[in-house]
This record gives sequence, C-alpha cells and structure tokens, in this order.
Amino acid sequence: MPSVRRVAHAFLARQGLTTVFGNPGSNELPFLAGLPDGFRYVLGLHEGAVVGMADGYAQATGRPVLVNLHAASGSGNAMGALTNAVASRTPLVVVAGQQVRSAVGPEANLANVDAAALMKPLVGWAAEPACAEDVPRALAQAVFEARLQRRPTYLSVPYDDWAADAGDNSLAVLEREVARAAVPDAEQGRRLAERVAAARRPALVLGGDVDTPGLFHDAVRLAERLGCPVWAAPSLFRLPFPNRHPLFRGVLPAGIAPVAAAFEGHDLVLVLGAPVFRYHEHLPGRYLPEGTRLVQVTEDASAAARAPMGEALVADPAAVVEHLLKVLDGAATSGAPYRPVPEPPAGDGARLHPEEVFAALRDEQPEDTAYVVESTSTNSAWWRQMDLRRPGSYYFPAAGGLGFGLPGAVGVAMGHPDRPVVGVVGDGSANYGITALWTAAQHRVPLTVVLLRNGTYGALRWFGGLLGVPDAPGLDIPGLDFTRIAEGYGVPSRHVTGAGELRAVLAERTDGPRLIQVDTTLTTPA
Amino acid sequence: MPSVRRVAHAFLARQGLTTVFGNPGSNELPFLAGLPDGFRYVLGLHEGAVVGMADGYAQATGRPVLVNLHAASGSGNAMGALTNAVASRTPLVVVAGQQVRSAVGPEANLANVDAAALMKPLVGWAAEPACAEDVPRALAQAVFEARLQRRPTYLSVPYDDWAADAGDNSLAVLEREVARAAVPDAEQGRRLAERVAAARRPALVLGGDVDTPGLFHDAVRLAERLGCPVWAAPSLFRLPFPNRHPLFRGVLPAGIAPVAAAFEGHDLVLVLGAPVFRYHEHLPGRYLPEGTRLVQVTEDASAAARAPMGEALVADPAAVVEHLLKVLDGAATSGAPYRPVPEPPAGDGARLHPEEVFAALRDEQPEDTAYVVESTSTNSAWWRQMDLRRPGSYYFPAAGGLGFGLPGAVGVAMGHPDRPVVGVVGDGSANYGITALWTAAQHRVPLTVVLLRNGTYGALRWFGGLLGVPDAPGLDIPGLDFTRIAEGYGVPSRHVTGAGELRAVLAERTDGPRLIQVDTTLTTPA
Repeated sequence: MPSVRRVAHAFLARQGLTTVFGNPGSNELPFLAGLPDGFRYVLGLHEGAVVGMADGYAQATGRPVLVNLHAASGSGNAMGALTNAVASRTPLVVVAGQQVRSAVGPEANLANVDAAALMKPLVGWAAEPACAEDVPRALAQAVFEARLQRRPTYLSVPYDDWAADAGDNSLAVLEREVARAAVPDAEQGRRLAERVAAARRPALVLGGDVDTPGLFHDAVRLAERLGCPVWAAPSLFRLPFPNRHPLFRGVLPAGIAPVAAAFEGHDLVLVLGAPVFRYHEHLPGRYLPEGTRLVQVTEDASAAARAPMGEALVADPAAVVEHLLKVLDGAATSGAPYRPVPEPPAGDGARLHPEEVFAALRDEQPEDTAYVVESTSTNSAWWRQMDLRRPGSYYFPAAGGLGFGLPGAVGVAMGHPDRPVVGVVGDGSANYGITALWTAAQHRVPLTVVLLRNGTYGALRWFGGLLGVPDAPGLDIPGLDFTRIAEGYGVPSRHVTGAGELRAVLAERTDGPRLIQVDTTLTTPA
Repeated sequence: MPSVRRVAHAFLARQGLTTVFGNPGSNELPFLAGLPDGFRYVLGLHEGAVVGMADGYAQATGRPVLVNLHAASGSGNAMGALTNAVASRTPLVVVAGQQVRSAVGPEANLANVDAAALMKPLVGWAAEPACAEDVPRALAQAVFEARLQRRPTYLSVPYDDWAADAGDNSLAVLEREVARAAVPDAEQGRRLAERVAAARRPALVLGGDVDTPGLFHDAVRLAERLGCPVWAAPSLFRLPFPNRHPLFRGVLPAGIAPVAAAFEGHDLVLVLGAPVFRYHEHLPGRYLPEGTRLVQVTEDASAAARAPMGEALVADPAAVVEHLLKVLDGAATSGAPYRPVPEPPAGDGARLHPEEVFAALRDEQPEDTAYVVESTSTNSAWWRQMDLRRPGSYYFPAAGGLGFGLPGAVGVAMGHPDRPVVGVVGDGSANYGITALWTAAQHRVPLTVVLLRNGTYGALRWFGGLLGVPDAPGLDIPGLDFTRIAEGYGVPSRHVTGAGELRAVLAERTDGPRLIQVDTTLTTPA
C-alpha cells in the first residue's frame, strides 16, 4: 500500500501544486523527503517572507500554491502575511508540520497544541486529521477549500503520519476534482440587465477580483458601452481598470462620507468583484446619497452578507459582465484619449520627489511591467504619474499588512518570468519582509526593487495629523542603508541621487535582482 | 471625567509598565498620543522583533512589560514570537489597536475581526472590551492575568475608545492590586519533606523558573544538602544551576527513553519549576524506570495537569525549596571543585570550531556576562566550553521558535544595563529577528552579537539524519554576509577569521552594539 507521503505528493502533482514555498523545521522533514521530480522548493528565510512570496506567485499565476511551514512558532510567524492573502482572496494551501501524535497532548517542544484553532480565525478552513489514513483526503479538502473559498487553508500533519500506510481508499483523492458553478440563472441575469439598462446615470466600482486577463478587458468594454464613470474600490490591492482611461475616476477614498460624495447624482452603482466597502479612515456619513441604489456582484459570499448596504448577487463577476455585454444595447462611446500625465514636481535637491521616481519608472520600464507596491505615503503621487493599461500590472498588500512588498515582488517575478517586475517599497515597509531579497538572489529572480527612503513612517505621520495626534512616538526611522542590507543578502544594489541617474540605471537591463535606493521627499497618501 | 487614555496611562505608570515596546499603525496612534513623562517607547521595525525584545526585557527584569501592536496584520506578525513567551512564561501585556467600533463588523481595512479569537489559542487571556468605559478595567485584568498566569495576554481596543470618557468608576483600577499566595500548607510541606528525606537516591531536575536571583542559589544549597545529582529540564531556555558545578549532570536529553535512562537507580526525582517534560525527539520508551517516583513542583497549573506521569504540587518552587532547606537535616556535601573545561578542538583552518568561539567568550567576557543564545547546532559545543555560575546568565528561545535571539539579546541588554550581554546567534536564526539590530543601534544598546556562520540549517541537517530523511530541500543558506546587513541597520560589525583575532576583538569594550561574524565548522546539537 502506498504511504501517506506518496499519495500526498501524487495528489499535489496532479493538482499542479508543485512549487512549494517553505521554511523547514524538524517536523517538516518527513514531508519534504523524496519530493518527486518536477517539484520545486523555494526556501524563504522567514515565514512572513515565505507567505508573501507564495501570495505574489499565486496572484500572478492565478492558481493555488503550496506553502510548507513549521508548527506553532513557524506558523505564527506567517500569520501577519496571511492577513493579506485573506484580503486578496489568494488560495494558499499551508501544510504545517506537527509533532508526532503521541507528543502533542503533553505539549512536547515544537508541538502545536490545538493547531487548527490557532489558524481558524484567519483561514478559510483548518484541520488536523484525526488519523494518518485521513491525511490524503484532508489535503485534498485543503486544496479544494482554498480554491472554492479563495482563501488560505491550513493543514497540520503529525510528522509520523507521512510514513504510515495510506490505505487503498486514499487513492480515490487522485481522481477528485471540485469546481463551482457561478453563472446567474436566466431570471437573475435578466433582472440585473434591466436594472443597468434602466439606470439614467450608472457608475461602476471595480474591485481587485476584476484584475484577471479576460475580465479586465471586458470591464473596459462594459464601461465604454455604458459610457459611465469607473472607480476602483477603496483599499485597492490590484488595478482593475487602465488608470488613465478617460472613464476612470481613480480609487475611491476609503471613508464613508467621501464615497457617498463621489456617488452623488448616480442612480445606480454597480460594484463588481469587491467588498462593499473596505473603508479605512473614520469619516462618518450616509453610506449612499439619496436616490442611489447599489448592486454588488461578487463571488465572495461573506463579503456579500456582511455589507452594510445594497443588494448583492453572489456570482462570478466575469459571467455577469459577459452577460451584460451580450444583452445591453449601444455602441461603445467614442474613444476619448487617455488622460495625459502631469509634469512631476521637483524634489528638494538632495531628495527626489516621489513623482519624479514614478515618472522615471513609467518612461523607462516596458509597458508590460508588473509593479508590486508597498510605499504607502506615496500613494497619490503614484497614481498621478503612472499609466498602467494591462491586467496584472499592480499588486499592493491587500489587508494593509506591511511585509508583502518585497516578498510579493519576488513571488510575482517568479510567477511571471515573461514580464518585467518592479518592487516599489518604502524604507518602513521593507523591514517587514527584508529576507525575501536572499531568495531573489539565490534563484536569480529578475527583479528591480526601487527603495524609497524618506526616513519616517510617512503614512502614519499623515494619519496622526488626521486624528489630531501628531506627537506619537516611534514614527521616525533614520539610519537605514538598504544598499548594505541588500548586499548582505546577495542582491547588487546602488544608491541613486538624481532623476537622470535613476533613469539611466532603470534603462539598464538585468537578469537577476537588484535594489536601487533613492532618497525621497515626504508626501501624503491622499 | 478622565478619558480612557488618561486612566490607562495612569494605571500603567502605577504598575510600572512604563517601557513600551511597539510598532505602530494608524489604530495605535490615539493610545500613544500624550504618553506621560517617564514612559519610554522602544520602536521595533517588525512585530516579531518587538515581542522578542519585550520578552528579553521582561525576563531580565522579572516584571510584566507592555507591548503595543497593530491589529490583525501586526498582531499576526508577532504570533511566532509569542510562542516563545508562552513557553518561557513571560508576562507580556499586548495592547493592540483596533479599528473604530462601527468599522469592525463590516471588516473595514485594518479591522481585526474577532480579535480575541485570533490570539486566544496562544495567550493566557484575550479580550476586546464591549464598550469604551470597560477599557481601563480590562487593561488592569490584562496586566493581572499576565502576572498571575505568567503568560502573555492580549487586549484589543477600538481606537475611538481612547478619547471617550472613562467614567468615575474607572478610577478604581488605580488602587487595584492582585497577588497570588503559593506557599504549601503545613501538611503539604511536611509530606514533601518526608518524601525527600526518605529517598535513598534522590535527584533534582530544575526548570527555567528556577533561574531567579534567590532561587538559583537556594537550589544549589538544596542540591549540596542532599548531595544529589542535578539535571536541567529538557528543552532548556534558562540555566537554573551552575553548569560546571560538581553535582550538575547537564541538560536532560529531550526524549522519553534517554530521560528514563538518566533516572535509572533513583527512587525519587524532584522536578522544580519545569513541565514534565518538554520532550522534542521522538525516542519512545517507558517514562520512568521501575521504582522511580517523580514529584513535580511548579506554579504552572496547566503543566501540572497535563504531565503524563508523576505527582504534582502546584506551588511556588522558591517557597518549597526554602521549606526543604529549613527542615532537612544534613550538612552540605564538601565542595568538590567545579569541573574543568576541556581544550577546544580546532577548526579546519578557514573556519573556527564553535568550541573555540565559546572558549574565547568564556575567557574574554566578564564572569557576569548574560548570554542570549540562538545557535541550535552548537548546543553541545556550548555547554562543553561555558562556565556560567550566576543567575540570569543564559537565555534561549523557549518554544524553539527562531527569532528570539537577536531581539531577546537587545531586550536583555536594555533590561540589564549593569551586566555585559552577548548574543550568540546562528546564520539561520539571525534572519528571523534581524531588524532588532536597528533598535540596538538607535538606543545605543551595549551588546555584542557573535554571529556564527556555517552556511546551513545545521540542527535540521542533524535531525534529518535522525529521521532517516537526509535529502530534504531548503537546508543550505549560502551567500549571507551579516557584516553588511548589520551596517545597513547601523550596527558596526566585523568579520573575524582566527581565534586570536576573536579574543582580541572581544577584549575591546564598547558602549554600543557591535556584530562579530565568525565562520564556523558544522557541529551537531547533541
């Protein structure tokens, strides 16, 4: 009879989960032993970086990804990074090592007592099988739940299970497939189309789930067919629409009152592939203007149920857009030109203005560059300068949890070897996932990291002003030199001082990772 | 009426929790605003480092310490480090920022939905008060629970609560004190003393809880009075006994069978201040030899209840030892000399043997040096060379969770400004808490970090051999230069190649942090 390990490896191979992001401890070794040909193990030096890399890789490839972590301490290290994967709806399958079964109850060292309970508040599904024979089936469940829920899942496996006989029944998992149908029925489709057709002034709000190769372009067609304004949903983590398109109004501000103000005069707001809404700033007010109705289409049933207003249809936004394009009359609005970019303001001599940095990226990087951004204080400067027209161009930590930027950039670059990838990371953010640089160096991942150094937690400074508490301690972070740190992790780096030098460096092509440190002036997120 | 913030700050000041280790996000700013004079905020660049520093500081000072973290992402980043604090029974009081109350249910960005559930599997007590007026009382509960349970606690506070009126009743917490009595009653004391006195061949096993200034020395007196062998409990994280004392037999191996073998011939094993036992390696066997009885004295009720064998008395080990010293007859055994240190083996030319490094520390560092060690593959080499005779000389990640070493060393050095502190950290371990170097540089913490670089996860290699799985991927970590990384974080550093050079560098005194990188040969933990 096959061992649990053999069946598990075979199942993972069939499901295409053959790139394993991990950081091993003793409990994990029996699972990792004898990984078949075709598997690739990507080592991260810290579990937060491991999950961030896997998150970027899964988002870039659009597929579930296997993560292998240690028990309580190792899994605990990953939990911050998992909050981003939850918010970006990334199907990570975390398999964690557990002590041998007899050692869990007495709390032997490296046991994860009540392992599933530790992770359940975060993940979509968590379990520790009650016996070794159930491990292959439970692993299949972890993969299918991650895919169905689009949320990380967690499976804790006592390490003595891997060598156990799996039993003949276990082979049944090799044939399993689980899929979900999410197309509206005829009546649901008809009603929604009528609502949209009847709207005098509709508006679209698009969420991160719209940033897929097909839906991204279909959403543009729908907007042009309706001739209506388009916003990106608040707390944006993927760009669902070309940001200089004439119909694009930008990212909705993350507060109740300004969102309502943006919707003023619209009788229908159609939200596709987003929660309603991920507010952040506490700016109270009416959710919607008088006379505005909101309809949300999302595959995320929880987001539909918990929203504080509007009607919701739990369905595949791609199917809904396809249906609307089929049944809605009208030619596309004549193509107004894309909005031009403004001249970037100048820095202060010693420091570049962030807009100068982003203008350089826009001009020097190929148009199909994918950007992984974790520089929160430069958010508005970013959107003023960039011109992103393709799906998969923009990634940001979805829960606002810092530490996604560097690892996510490594993961996106590994997942998209065909596209240039740039990480745009602040000097505060970089520290939460710094060790991902080492993985980039070891795998010679082609990646440019632009490190914006302003010496402070700039977004927090701005927020402190909003809250009327400007005197909080712990906001300044002087004395960091990321060129040294990067070199310590094996990544070539340089400090760049002028816009011309930056442009020249960006124009050089590299086949591995590099870090460019730029001192920048302080800007505000909004 | 006073605000919630004012009462909270006043309560923390009265309880002596005035050093705050933190990493702020927007939700935390209203708590941090207007911290009164006498408070000190210690910024860490990653939450894992924040908790590791606080853990070291709390262990060194023996007092509860306040930690301030961000909501789900920030708290999640800290959860690996918290596993160590749980195992070392460190009373950390984690206060975390939460979104405003009205934004939690709809899952606004940076909301920690069901915050208490997230942390409860790890901490001793976790809560989010149901209203603002309950925050001061709940904060008091968090401090008292941490002290009573000697375990981290977690309080999530919606950030709009801090400015709310606390109500007159809230001032009652300023007068609260909560203490626990843990001295055995006369009958319990008599029975235990009789058991010990009647034993023909007793043995002592001491846990980390014995490493306090008073009990450490009393344990030596008790062992000398009994003339019995002494072991440190398995999975040692604090040294409870002078390691070259003639009665010391070393750290018990962390497996069932070898522990039983060590106890062979002893009719009574008295375990003080330790779980029974934190095994790690799966080496099955009988728990105890035929005829051996085990009695455990611990303040940790959970450790007493879950132990798989023996009798347990939940009581203060210090009170028990004091009682035994009072009632047991017999003079101390005549003082045999402390065991001499062996000559360290030589390295391979390019690399020093770890024992050469430790011999240099032993010879060049003052006798009262405190060591924070996170170099797992050099464990046996360490104990062969070191000669530690004082309490508070040794700290190790208690749950085996890497990432305690560097931060813990910073925290111990801040908590013990009167003692030299050395961090002994491996090249694998260092990456899990690397950003603590920055805090050391900013606060000019006097600290020497000796970075042992062998280019591999050495302890894992050894474990893979034990498990018969030598071929696991992800065990090698080449290409790391910690002198560069340290300089990037503002810590002066140097790479040292010979034993003589190492001794000369160690003999130099510094008033801030420094890092010494040494290439070492691979050794095994046991």
